[in-house]
Amino acid sequence: MSERYDIAIVGSGPAGLSAAINAKIRNKNIIVFGSKDLSSKIVKAPKINNYLGLPGVTGEQLKEHFKKHVEDMEIEITTERVNNIYAMGDYFALMVNDKTYEATTVILTTGIEFSKPLPGEMEFLGRGVGYCATCDAPLYKGKVATVVGYNKESVEETNFISEIVGKVNFIPMFKDEYSLNPNIEVIKSIPKEVLGTDKVNKLVLKDGEVSTDAVFILKDSISPGQLVPGLEMDEMHIKVNRKMETNLPGLYAAGDITGKPYQYIKAAGEGQMAGLNAVSYIDNKNKASENK
Amino acid sequence: MSERYDIAIVGSGPAGLSAAINAKIRNKNIIVFGSKDLSSKIVKAPKINNYLGLPGVTGEQLKEHFKKHVEDMEIEITTERVNNIYAMGDYFALMVNDKTYEATTVILTTGIEFSKPLPGEMEFLGRGVGYCATCDAPLYKGKVATVVGYNKESVEETNFISEIVGKVNFIPMFKDEYSLNPNIEVIKSIPKEVLGTDKVNKLVLKDGEVSTDAVFILKDSISPGQLVPGLEMDEMHIKVNRKMETNLPGLYAAGDITGKPYQYIKAAGEGQMAGLNAVSYIDNKNKASENK
Ligand SMILES: Cc1cc2nc3c(=O)[nH]c(=O)nc-3n(C[C@H](O)[C@H](O)[C@H](O)COP(=O)(O)OP(=O)(O)OC[C@H]3O[C@@H](n4cnc5c(N)ncnc54)[C@H](O)[C@@H]3O)c2cc1C
Ligand SMILES: Cc1cc2nc3c(=O)[nH]c(=O)nc-3n(C[C@H](O)[C@H](O)[C@H](O)COP(=O)(O)OP(=O)(O)OC[C@H]3O[C@@H](n4cnc5c(N)ncnc54)[C@H](O)[C@@H]3O)c2cc1C
Repeated sequence: MSERYDIAIVGSGPAGLSAAINAKIRNKNIIVFGSKDLSSKIVKAPKINNYLGLPGVTGEQLKEHFKKHVEDMEIEITTERVNNIYAMGDYFALMVNDKTYEATTVILTTGIEFSKPLPGEMEFLGRGVGYCATCDAPLYKGKVATVVGYNKESVEETNFISEIVGKVNFIPMFKDEYSLNPNIEVIKSIPKEVLGTDKVNKLVLKDGEVSTDAVFILKDSISPGQLVPGLEMDEMHIKVNRKMETNLPGLYAAGDITGKPYQYIKAAGEGQMAGLNAVSYIDNKNKASENK
Repeated sequence: MSERYDIAIVGSGPAGLSAAINAKIRNKNIIVFGSKDLSSKIVKAPKINNYLGLPGVTGEQLKEHFKKHVEDMEIEITTERVNNIYAMGDYFALMVNDKTYEATTVILTTGIEFSKPLPGEMEFLGRGVGYCATCDAPLYKGKVATVVGYNKESVEETNFISEIVGKVNFIPMFKDEYSLNPNIEVIKSIPKEVLGTDKVNKLVLKDGEVSTDAVFILKDSISPGQLVPGLEMDEMHIKVNRKMETNLPGLYAAGDITGKPYQYIKAAGEGQMAGLNAVSYIDNKNKASENK
């Protein structure tokens, strides 16, 4: 059985890190999923004037300040992507490729780095469309899978599934170098629509189309409604109240993903609020079970 | 006529300063009321571990970081206390002792440094009880006024009114030195209740009572419901939504005053939200009047 964390924090931007330091101070057993660079939205910023206390820093400098803080507090970042989160009643199950993590509470701070779904994407989700190629590849043994890859990590996943499925097409949506297994066909185009009958059978491109049994869309972030089934949204944002509670008990959200303005210290403030409220949730739960 | 500011920010804690820097970046004409030390809640903190990006600072160090930020951005702090704020329809009037300031929007970030009112205090407010001795002293020419002073500034106010009213009693509620005019009677006791018929006539003390026509209660902060008539409260906090809007259009609140947890970066995040929403409010208002 896997270890049960008190709090799983998904995201290592300002919202996630602020949640993490506050939960850690309260002695909670936490896990933080994110990236080595913390967040592309931090490192890419040229000049930041509105993070109170750190005037005129660059994104790189802000990243270093944040890094030092989490390192001082011995908080590690698990550089894995969470593909799905399921509310199991008493806890949450977080699916990370071939692993499952368990946590009593979850704080979602995944930012807004996701684009609108393609026409047909939502309709065929689970019927050919997927966000985790390595998870679903075994379903397509001997069949055709097409990967739409938005980042370098998608290359690795594509190589992996090329050993399992019959044929792989790869559509790179980023500019960078990549080395693919020779049996993968690279298609330089832009996906426009997913078509099918009861299951996917075609991906329409800007210039043409490909027949395919599966379409894997591998982005940095997937929309939170897809990440957590049953999560209530307010258009493209997660619906939260002032305590950063979502509609699912024990699940909190903070930062850009909860709405505008998209800003660092708003995200950090909300992360703190979510972190401290998750701590209270756990403490109340423990008290209730002691009194039984 | 006094200058009309775009935004008046009441308070120079993390919430007020974060609102200020964000409004200033958007080129708004702002005024910030507060204190030289920024906030007693900042300088008094022994060690702060949970302000993301500034690990392990003391309160004094955090104050210096904040000071540098506002100074870099040429934001000045007006070290005056706001006694009352009135919604005038198109703008707000802020009463500061003998001056009035005008602003299109107001952001309240006054913290929670206020105590419960005394029994009788609210009942006789405006009928003998007041929070601004210098404002109301002329009403008590030749009469008896009793000042309950919670800070050193109250000494100055008491000296001032002793030149106007008939007799002054001073009840010091703080430990420090003070030099009072010789005609002021110092009473070392604790006020318990304000009594009267249609107007105040007595202040009951822990050990005895004094006959008096006026009771001036001079604290660092007054409760926001008293500061702004008509402001909707949620018990001791100002009721706000996720945009930090209060029930009064154009009036925003942020920080401790809007509810728990009482923490710096939560306050700073909310201050930013309030600042940016006040900016939008003004911009929309200007657009609407251009289109007329
Ligand atoms: C160029 C640029 C300049 C900016 N300048 C400013 C500025 O000057 N001032 C300002 O206040 N704001 C600025 N911003 C906005 C600011 O970057 C964002 O508001 C802020 O980063 C939001 O923080 P967050 O924690 O909500 O999300 P993000 O910083 O977006 O972090 C999201 C995190 O979630 C992780 N993640 C996402 N999905 C998953 C998953 N499934 N599994 C695991 N991890 C996942 C990501 O890897 C990342 O770590 C700027 C943004 C950009 C792009
Ligand atoms: C000893 C101590 C240690 C703490 N340690 C931590 C910690 O480690 N981490 C953490 O996150 N939080 C800590 N806090 C809590 C933190 O100090 C508060 O949450 C934070 O200061 C709230 O910010 P604020 O801007 O809402 O209000 P405040 O900081 O209280 O600022 C209120 C401001 O309003 C001004 N003001 C009030 N009334 C008026 C008026 N009528 N006219 C003009 N100005 C007015 C005041 O002068 C002041 O400038 C600590 C607090 C204390 C007392």
